[in-house]
Amino acid sequence: MAEPNNKPTMEDVAREAGVALSTVSKVVNNQRVGEGYRLKVNKAIESLGYRYNNSGRALRTSKSSTIALIVPSMHPFFAKLVYHVNAALSRRNYTMMLFISQDDYAREKECMQLAVENQVDGIIALTYNPSLEIPKNTSIVTIDRFFSQEIPCVTSDNFEGSRIAVHKLYELGCRKLALLYSCSQLRTEVSKRKDGFISACHELGIPFETKEIVEARARRIDLFDDFLAAHVHDGRLDYDGLFCCSDLAAWYACNKLREMGIRIPEDVQVIGYDGIRAFGEGDYLVSTIVQPVQEIAETCVSTILSEDFSSRPSLICLPVEFADGGTTKKMP
Amino acid sequence: MAEPNNKPTMEDVAREAGVALSTVSKVVNNQRVGEGYRLKVNKAIESLGYRYNNSGRALRTSKSSTIALIVPSMHPFFAKLVYHVNAALSRRNYTMMLFISQDDYAREKECMQLAVENQVDGIIALTYNPSLEIPKNTSIVTIDRFFSQEIPCVTSDNFEGSRIAVHKLYELGCRKLALLYSCSQLRTEVSKRKDGFISACHELGIPFETKEIVEARARRIDLFDDFLAAHVHDGRLDYDGLFCCSDLAAWYACNKLREMGIRIPEDVQVIGYDGIRAFGEGDYLVSTIVQPVQEIAETCVSTILSEDFSSRPSLICLPVEFADGGTTKKMP
Repeated sequence: MAEPNNKPTMEDVAREAGVALSTVSKVVNNQRVGEGYRLKVNKAIESLGYRYNNSGRALRTSKSSTIALIVPSMHPFFAKLVYHVNAALSRRNYTMMLFISQDDYAREKECMQLAVENQVDGIIALTYNPSLEIPKNTSIVTIDRFFSQEIPCVTSDNFEGSRIAVHKLYELGCRKLALLYSCSQLRTEVSKRKDGFISACHELGIPFETKEIVEARARRIDLFDDFLAAHVHDGRLDYDGLFCCSDLAAWYACNKLREMGIRIPEDVQVIGYDGIRAFGEGDYLVSTIVQPVQEIAETCVSTILSEDFSSRPSLICLPVEFADGGTTKKMP
Repeated sequence: MAEPNNKPTMEDVAREAGVALSTVSKVVNNQRVGEGYRLKVNKAIESLGYRYNNSGRALRTSKSSTIALIVPSMHPFFAKLVYHVNAALSRRNYTMMLFISQDDYAREKECMQLAVENQVDGIIALTYNPSLEIPKNTSIVTIDRFFSQEIPCVTSDNFEGSRIAVHKLYELGCRKLALLYSCSQLRTEVSKRKDGFISACHELGIPFETKEIVEARARRIDLFDDFLAAHVHDGRLDYDGLFCCSDLAAWYACNKLREMGIRIPEDVQVIGYDGIRAFGEGDYLVSTIVQPVQEIAETCVSTILSEDFSSRPSLICLPVEFADGGTTKKMP
C-alpha cells in the first residue's frame, strides 16, 4: 500500500495489481491489453485511489472530456451504477453528463440527441427502447443490451447467474422451483436469466414453472400477485424455491408470501438478482445473485475511452456470485 | 387532466394548479412569484408532464444550458435528489453535469472547480466541506447548509421535523427519549434536528438524553453501539423512544436493539429522518420524518435558473411529515 500521505504512483498501482508497469501504462492510456489485466489494474487503481494525470494524453485534445450516461431511473441498481461510472470517469479527469429517461422511450430518444448535441466524447446507455436509433459518429457502449458488433455491450453473466441460483436452491433442499420473471418485450442480455434458469432445472432434472410478465417498464412486480395466490393451497406454496429476475421482485414476493402465512426461508426459499443492499451499503435485502457493478462501470468507462474503440469485444459478460440475504436457509 | 395523446399546454397547467395563466408564465420564465404559487405550478407541471418550450427565452442565449449538481454519495436520499433535480432540469431543457464527491473534501473542491471550468450556468451543491471556497461569478444554490445571504440555501424544515417526531413518540406513549445524532463538525441546517428535539422534549416536560457523534462523514452509525449497549439493563433499554438523525441510523439502531432481544415497536419505538423507501419506491424502511425531496429539487432548480437570482430568499425551509414505517405503534 502507498503511504497514506503520499499520492499513489503508477508504480504503486503495478505492485498492487501484480502486473508490469507497462501494463498499467497501457490501461491508463487506453491501449490494447488483455481484459483480465485491465480488471486487475482498475481494481488496484480503485483500492489505492490512484488519480490519472491526463496532461500528456493526445486523447484529450479537442475533446469535451465529458461522457454521457443514460439510465432509466434511480432504482438502487442504477444509483450504484451511476456512482461507480462517475468514480471511474473522475479518476480519468472526465466529467459525467447524467440523463435519466424516466422509463420513457420518447425521453430516452431525446436524451440520446441531447448527449450528441452537447458534444460528449461518448455515451454509456442502459436503454430498453425498442425503436432507439443509435447516433452515428459518437462512441456508444451499452449495458445489458446487445445492439450490434459495432457497439460494445457490457453486462453481468446473466445465464451463469441463474444457474448459480438454481444450483444453490437445489443444494439447500429445494426440489420444485418457479421463476418470477418480468421483462420488456425486447430480447436483451437480461433474457438470459430465464434461459439459465430453464437450463439448470433441466440439468438437475427437477420440475419447474416460469411466470413471465411482459411489459414495457419491467417493474410491475404487483402483477405476480395472481400467480402466487393461485399457487397457494392449504397455506402451502406449490414450490419450495423461487428464483426472481430482480431483488425487487424477490422482496415483493417474500412480503406477499409472508402475508399469506408462508414462512421464508423455512417453507419457501427465495433468491433475487442484482445484489441490492439496505441504504446502498448495509445488509442484502434478499438472498441474491450479486452483479459486479463496479467492474461493469470500470469496463464501460475503459471501453468508451479506449483508443482502439472499434476493436473492443462486442459483448463482455462479467462474473456474478451468490450472497445470503436471509431468504435462503443456511448451509447444513 | 389533459387528453393522454395531446401534449399538455400552459393552460392545462394553470387549470390543474388552480392559478392564473400569467402565474404559470412567470414560473416558467423564472420571474418573481410567491413561493406557494411556484410550488403549486411546479406540482401541476410535474403531474401533467408539461414540457417547457425554451426557444423564446432570452435566458438561454449564450449559456451552456447545463447545471452542475454536487452530492457526497449515492445514498438513497441523494439518489432521489439526483432523480428529481434531473427531472426538473430536463423539463426546462437543461442538462445535468453530475459530480459525486465521495465524501472527500479535496475531491469536492475539485468538483466545484471542474463545474466552473465546464462553464455550467449554475451549481447546486450539497457539501459538508468546512473549508469550501465558493467560486465567484457562478450562481450557486446549496442544500442543507447555509453559507451566506448571497447564496440561497434550500432545506427541509429540520427543526419542525424533530418536533413532529418527538410529539408523535409522546402521543404513542413514550415518556423517556434519546436522540441518536451523528453530524459533521460544521453547524448546518441539519443541526436543527437536534435543536428541535431538545426544544420539544422541554415543551412536553419529558426526560431525554442526546448521544452525539461528531465525525467528518456523518455516517459512522456503528459508533452508536456502545451507547446502546451501555443503556440496556436486564433486557430493557433505558428509553422507550428513540429519535435518530437519519433513517440509516434508525434502521441500524433497530437491528442492534433486536439483536439484544428488545422488541420494536413493543418495547422501544424508533423514528428516523429522511423518508427512505425500500428500492426507492416500496415501503418505508423505518418510521420516519419524510423530506419533500421533489419540492427541494424543484426549488433548487427554479432558484438557480431564476432571472432575479440575487433577490431570491436566502433560506427556504420546506415542510416535512411523519410516515409510519412499522417501528412505531399504531395510533390507538
